[in-house]
Amino acid sequence: MSESNGAIEEEYADLGATTTEAMEIAETSMDIVRQFVPDETLADRVRQKSVHSMGDIEFQHLLEFTGRDEIGNDEDAPIRAGARAVLEFADIVTDITMAKAGVTSRGHDCERRKAIGHGSELAKETGMTRTAASVLELDKRGVYDGAIAVVGNAPTAAFALADCIENGTRPAAVVATPVGFVKASESRERIREVSDEYGVPAITNVGRRGGSGLAAALTNELIHVASDVRNGDLELDLAAETRVAQNEAGDADR
Amino acid sequence: MSESNGAIEEEYADLGATTTEAMEIAETSMDIVRQFVPDETLADRVRQKSVHSMGDIEFQHLLEFTGRDEIGNDEDAPIRAGARAVLEFADIVTDITMAKAGVTSRGHDCERRKAIGHGSELAKETGMTRTAASVLELDKRGVYDGAIAVVGNAPTAAFALADCIENGTRPAAVVATPVGFVKASESRERIREVSDEYGVPAITNVGRRGGSGLAAALTNELIHVASDVRNGDLELDLAAETRVAQNEAGDADR
Repeated sequence: MSESNGAIEEEYADLGATTTEAMEIAETSMDIVRQFVPDETLADRVRQKSVHSMGDIEFQHLLEFTGRDEIGNDEDAPIRAGARAVLEFADIVTDITMAKAGVTSRGHDCERRKAIGHGSELAKETGMTRTAASVLELDKRGVYDGAIAVVGNAPTAAFALADCIENGTRPAAVVATPVGFVKASESRERIREVSDEYGVPAITNVGRRGGSGLAAALTNELIHVASDVRNGDLELDLAAETRVAQNEAGDADR
Repeated sequence: MSESNGAIEEEYADLGATTTEAMEIAETSMDIVRQFVPDETLADRVRQKSVHSMGDIEFQHLLEFTGRDEIGNDEDAPIRAGARAVLEFADIVTDITMAKAGVTSRGHDCERRKAIGHGSELAKETGMTRTAASVLELDKRGVYDGAIAVVGNAPTAAFALADCIENGTRPAAVVATPVGFVKASESRERIREVSDEYGVPAITNVGRRGGSGLAAALTNELIHVASDVRNGDLELDLAAETRVAQNEAGDADR
């Protein structure tokens, strides 16, 4: 943090912002976003991040939160599970390089990995996409169990990941936002199916939009939530309903 | 290209698609996109790519093509200039790592570079964003002259690049699509101003949306156009109007 501007609070809006100007932009930007997105639950934080990342206020309504943790299956479950995994140094495994490049290196000690580049023999033999083959290959090595599995680009990678979950793999949390006109929306629907059926916590979106930038931004918010927990600014193990009630009680006290 | 499926034509829709399934998805996807986006000019190819990348048919209407080359200042000028630069092995310089990661390594011999990581002293001294400082630092070294300058994320990097252009730097082409609520739209407006004033060819968008994925996709289309020229499938040095007229004449012959 720059010492030239004491007005910037230490708790800043974006872990990637490290200069005075960048922090001011990030703060102003999130202030604008919060005018249009609720700020009650952990899921709301992810909604805010999606709006910020996509430059589109309406994107908040396209996110879905599925699966469960020990607290319950409320909308905050995938954020709690994801932040918990960050605090426990889980691997963060993205489908492609671009998504990995977007995941911040700050505020966590997780290993950032990418699937692409593995399983090229399988891709060659079967003709399946390189990303789908890479997911299957890493899954064979047990990489996805307990990991934060991020799919930002490739619908076929999301389908492959869903198959792995059906076959017993249990990621700590899934972030899946493939973009496009062919199978993208369906691949996220399939992630939500296995998320519901096997209780695997997942953050996805509906519709054709999405992408690696979005996936990275949502993953970064999991890291940010984990940082807030680590710093004692946030209690993680609350159901969304309880958190809202506590916020309201806090507001009433003021 | 997989040999297991001879039905896939060698001229495929996406340089990143190298397996049978990936090529089928890319082809199907672009077929869908072409139902909704014109296919007449080189700018139309970039419009198609934006729709494909953003998963949003309406995005085509948000692109702007400014600046000029020796053929003219028609909408194809920045694509011709960008493709020409690719054919001449220009550097492709992105603002951040994510945009660089999205630029394909196939179909060209350009060096892919990123600005971020340079100019950290300047950022520390001034408090300006790391990306803005990195652009100014690389510009001081002459990196942007004749390069394809890509700004996918940081409005302040786009502003810095515009200042460099005002001060005499001449990129071969600019692709600028920063996303967000603070200065993003204004930074692209500023790029268009210097693009118009100094004739620097630029592809930008209006509105708050954008991002590194989009910037990489549009840059990849410049590379794809260059590949088509190199393979003799496309004549580069035509004004958009002439190209449309030739297409129509070709259609009439059938």
